[in-house]
Amino acid sequence: MFSRKSPTHVSKRLAIGAAALVAVLAPTFAYAQDVEYLTQSNANILWTLIAAALVMIMQAGFACVECGFTRAKNAGNIMMKNFLDYAAGSIIFFLFGYALMFGADAGGFIGTSGYALGGITEADLPWTYTFWFFQSVFAATAATIVSGGMAERTKFGTYVIISMVISGLIYPVSGHWIWGGGWLGNLGFCDFAGSTVVHSVGGWIALAGALVLGPRIGKYTEDGKARAIPGHNIPLAGLGVFILWFGWFGFNPGSTVEANDAIGLIAMNTTLAACAGTLGAMVFAWIRFGKPDISMSMNGALAGLVGITAPCATVTPGPSIIIGLVAGVLVVLAIEFIDKVLKIDDPVGASSVHGVCGAWGTISCGLFNVDGGLFYGGGVHLLGVQLLGVGAVFIWAFGTGFILMNVLKGVFGLRASKEEELKGLDIGEHGSEAYNGFQLFSNE
Amino acid sequence: MFSRKSPTHVSKRLAIGAAALVAVLAPTFAYAQDVEYLTQSNANILWTLIAAALVMIMQAGFACVECGFTRAKNAGNIMMKNFLDYAAGSIIFFLFGYALMFGADAGGFIGTSGYALGGITEADLPWTYTFWFFQSVFAATAATIVSGGMAERTKFGTYVIISMVISGLIYPVSGHWIWGGGWLGNLGFCDFAGSTVVHSVGGWIALAGALVLGPRIGKYTEDGKARAIPGHNIPLAGLGVFILWFGWFGFNPGSTVEANDAIGLIAMNTTLAACAGTLGAMVFAWIRFGKPDISMSMNGALAGLVGITAPCATVTPGPSIIIGLVAGVLVVLAIEFIDKVLKIDDPVGASSVHGVCGAWGTISCGLFNVDGGLFYGGGVHLLGVQLLGVGAVFIWAFGTGFILMNVLKGVFGLRASKEEELKGLDIGEHGSEAYNGFQLFSNE
Amino acid sequence: MFSRKSPTHVSKRLAIGAAALVAVLAPTFAYAQDVEYLTQSNANILWTLIAAALVMIMQAGFACVECGFTRAKNAGNIMMKNFLDYAAGSIIFFLFGYALMFGADAGGFIGTSGYALGGITEADLPWTYTFWFFQSVFAATAATIVSGGMAERTKFGTYVIISMVISGLIYPVSGHWIWGGGWLGNLGFCDFAGSTVVHSVGGWIALAGALVLGPRIGKYTEDGKARAIPGHNIPLAGLGVFILWFGWFGFNPGSTVEANDAIGLIAMNTTLAACAGTLGAMVFAWIRFGKPDISMSMNGALAGLVGITAPCATVTPGPSIIIGLVAGVLVVLAIEFIDKVLKIDDPVGASSVHGVCGAWGTISCGLFNVDGGLFYGGGVHLLGVQLLGVGAVFIWAFGTGFILMNVLKGVFGLRASKEEELKGLDIGEHGSEAYNGFQLFSNE
Repeated sequence: MFSRKSPTHVSKRLAIGAAALVAVLAPTFAYAQDVEYLTQSNANILWTLIAAALVMIMQAGFACVECGFTRAKNAGNIMMKNFLDYAAGSIIFFLFGYALMFGADAGGFIGTSGYALGGITEADLPWTYTFWFFQSVFAATAATIVSGGMAERTKFGTYVIISMVISGLIYPVSGHWIWGGGWLGNLGFCDFAGSTVVHSVGGWIALAGALVLGPRIGKYTEDGKARAIPGHNIPLAGLGVFILWFGWFGFNPGSTVEANDAIGLIAMNTTLAACAGTLGAMVFAWIRFGKPDISMSMNGALAGLVGITAPCATVTPGPSIIIGLVAGVLVVLAIEFIDKVLKIDDPVGASSVHGVCGAWGTISCGLFNVDGGLFYGGGVHLLGVQLLGVGAVFIWAFGTGFILMNVLKGVFGLRASKEEELKGLDIGEHGSEAYNGFQLFSNE
Repeated sequence: MFSRKSPTHVSKRLAIGAAALVAVLAPTFAYAQDVEYLTQSNANILWTLIAAALVMIMQAGFACVECGFTRAKNAGNIMMKNFLDYAAGSIIFFLFGYALMFGADAGGFIGTSGYALGGITEADLPWTYTFWFFQSVFAATAATIVSGGMAERTKFGTYVIISMVISGLIYPVSGHWIWGGGWLGNLGFCDFAGSTVVHSVGGWIALAGALVLGPRIGKYTEDGKARAIPGHNIPLAGLGVFILWFGWFGFNPGSTVEANDAIGLIAMNTTLAACAGTLGAMVFAWIRFGKPDISMSMNGALAGLVGITAPCATVTPGPSIIIGLVAGVLVVLAIEFIDKVLKIDDPVGASSVHGVCGAWGTISCGLFNVDGGLFYGGGVHLLGVQLLGVGAVFIWAFGTGFILMNVLKGVFGLRASKEEELKGLDIGEHGSEAYNGFQLFSNE
Repeated sequence: MFSRKSPTHVSKRLAIGAAALVAVLAPTFAYAQDVEYLTQSNANILWTLIAAALVMIMQAGFACVECGFTRAKNAGNIMMKNFLDYAAGSIIFFLFGYALMFGADAGGFIGTSGYALGGITEADLPWTYTFWFFQSVFAATAATIVSGGMAERTKFGTYVIISMVISGLIYPVSGHWIWGGGWLGNLGFCDFAGSTVVHSVGGWIALAGALVLGPRIGKYTEDGKARAIPGHNIPLAGLGVFILWFGWFGFNPGSTVEANDAIGLIAMNTTLAACAGTLGAMVFAWIRFGKPDISMSMNGALAGLVGITAPCATVTPGPSIIIGLVAGVLVVLAIEFIDKVLKIDDPVGASSVHGVCGAWGTISCGLFNVDGGLFYGGGVHLLGVQLLGVGAVFIWAFGTGFILMNVLKGVFGLRASKEEELKGLDIGEHGSEAYNGFQLFSNE
């Protein structure tokens, strides 16, 4: 058996002989004294690690979606922000974030131990390493949602700070309230895989960022009418949505952090809600705009996925379809409302997909949960707790995001120069272009 | 332990303490009374769920391949069809398809129970949910194959109906014959992971669709000579092929639906056949056309994968290479035959890759199976059954597909208007473009 | 239970009833006589197979990175080389390579048995098939690294031979030294997952190839100044880096080839080093060039991953960050040194990322290993062995690569014609274009 502290002069490959030997000696399903079985604790490590890898590839999905839905001149910058979110976010989450989220509880509001995983006992380490890995890709997800809402006009240097504050402070604190032993979790707040903990937090900060930044040049006419700024690479965006969907099979079922028999239902609910979200947005946009809109349909898939994230383990398949359908319709309405009524320019609809549909998914627990849901005879108690949590996290995430953006705006400046924005951030911020050799239409 | 019906006020994260505790208490490989082990049934759930996720990402692969091998002006429409196939297909497969395929057998021809998974006992649910998830991504695969053959000229609204009929009726019925307890399976028909059940069915419906639709404008000259209409994004297509290949490691080994020691051979056979298919098509095209053709080589990889899907668990590595090589050569010949002799315009070669090579793979079981194969002393019995099944499924899939297409052609119209086709379906059907900002050559 | 040799007339789907039955009969975590548990040997097969699938998708990652970082006119050719590497490599590795690497040791230098997996006992086969699958994707990785360094100017026909010699001879021989029971492993050389075995070998052959080929037309001015030839598709390259990162969670943790409790640490170290590598390159390039360079940052992520590959199982998280940071800085320096000082034209920086950072990662074991590392009180013994191994493998890989390239140059010619290179290899070598319909700037 390979040991974490085996002398380095023992090549791991020597272990293979032993493993093969075991395979020889162990006729499958025979219950002899000398046959070894996989322990449940190692099975949990295995499943959680695989699930975490699936969540990690969602970084690629986000990058493709955000990139595809914005303009070619900013494509490299979007990729960079997605790399930065993950790179800086993981290091910060290792040093601080994990401790604030999962450390010893202080008054229900914040964790206070385990900086850089310090103080974990030797025996706890294998699980803690695995669980940290799983949680780190969740933290990266929250941070990366924000880059979409702030796309095409944010100074890269300032964005680095924003990203680090999200992964190191804003995300872990509300995460502690719900998953770390804090006050919301203690009230019975239901958010199995993070509609609120991850998605709404990201979505509301994105909304704050988009608001403080102001709209992209040319987004609104002089009389305040919103103009569509179409994305430059729809196949890339579509690929990104499929990759995100794929990763969600780690995100939701993996949130058991245990190899048990609950994961099948969770995966099925996740699929059904995503499919229903796609159909909901497609049909609703078809009726509303006269044609089945491509980017709305793709956002509908994501809306369904975000929506089912909270209730995926606590509802049955039928309601999952309803939750997804509603999310699909809701995302179309929310995108229009934020774009045309609030006049906040969120280029990829991050606040609608993750903020609004995250809130909807969280609230839906209060309606459809087999234990405690309003429609299952549970009364309004759970629904009340869900609404309270959604409201509290909105105030926390939007509020701290709004303050952060304004402080950084004053200190370093938040927005790229007009010239940079017109030429594209790729040239201005990074001195390069994303599509060398291709003839692009001039911008403006 | 997390329970599907745990009171919602118990945060799942509280379970982590318990899991970590188990990790502490359970020295790996010690066989004390208090150490828990992973049950085989939960291991089967775990493996089947992971495999299903791998099959799901094949939706991204199909989307990329079909998109890359067709023209830029239709790229968004292709993505939409792929989303629609999966979205509508899963819901329909939940409501009807699964019951027709795996429900109580009626006369060997169709299943008749389990609509919307009704009537499953509580104890059966964890496995059924998981198995449904696995099967739903198979159904989506069959449906999505069709979109490739009908690319660049089909009305989107009509396509929605086609896709739903495939997932809800055509695919489940022949699937029942083979995997659901029907007559073909009872005859001993061998199709381990679906060369016929999934791929041929999709390929033959695609052929029917392409035939009824007629060729794209400009595909054939006035004197009936085929003209190549090259794809617009070969790197995207190549990425798609790699993604499909990756997903096939869920498709084939996952078809054990059991975590056992057979999966290694299946994965190895899958790899070898895919590699041999790539080489077969590459070298054959090199000899035939004077240069190693890129899209033929990529189709060769898929041909090898489709071919090995039926026999992957019942043959040894050497024959897997032969099966793949033959598939690689066959796909080049089939594409040319369908294109130039039959003059059916299948833009991505879906009927050749999935129909023809699916049939070849199924027949190859009759030749190479270690038990029953002609070359292994098994006589011609199995070969006969395989040929019968290939023929019967061709008649069913092509026949119902042909009728369906003609009915829809009469009722709603199957084909987009000439103007739409020339401008591109993205504009005509969806009111948008896939590559905003890029300068494209004018079409026509 | 599905048996590899079950009579083919038993449909696999019939097994599902049995599996479902087991699920019914086996209340989770009850320890009755009749409950079955997953054996450790089958768990090892399961984990190794899943990890191998993750490593396989790295082929897509390499293809995207190489394609995105080079010019549009050669994009199809790059994809073809990546397919060829995997396709030919796996077949060759099956026939010869695996035997040379893992067969019975001859004098510490080479393996000599197991051609085409011959001579493996029946009982060993399930594990051997799985282990072969895992190793075959490693071999493909080594071969495919080389295509990047030789991009945009190599004759395809000659490249086929190069690729086969790498997978069938160069890679397996040095692999045998370290992982197959050879002299370096016996000295205690530490390379857990292949910084040297896989990455450096690929990187040094790439360097030899780039050297013998000479620079691309236009790469150096008449007075010898290096000119940047920017890549044509940065989003594709970014997606490729994320896919590689994802696959690395199979590459590194999967190298346990055992489902045990060590994989969490390995995954965590892998993440932290990759993140630190990204930041290291980003910040260093920012300081050095005045702007955060996109392709350098992406190469930084890969540099961190390559660096942590050797020590991932033998160091703790803190040093992993240091190893990644150093790799990130190092890759920027190495790319500049090779480009500007050595004047070797490696279009994607393959020799810097895989060669130099692979060497650094291997050496870092001698510094940071908890057992035997210099900074952990282990003295210089291990460090000496690591340096010896790095040097020996450089001599072997670069040396044989250099000889091979020169021989092929003399016999078949290594370089495409000037006209082909100017027009693009897609047209010259394959008679097609990668981006039909797009308006590209004329090249030269």
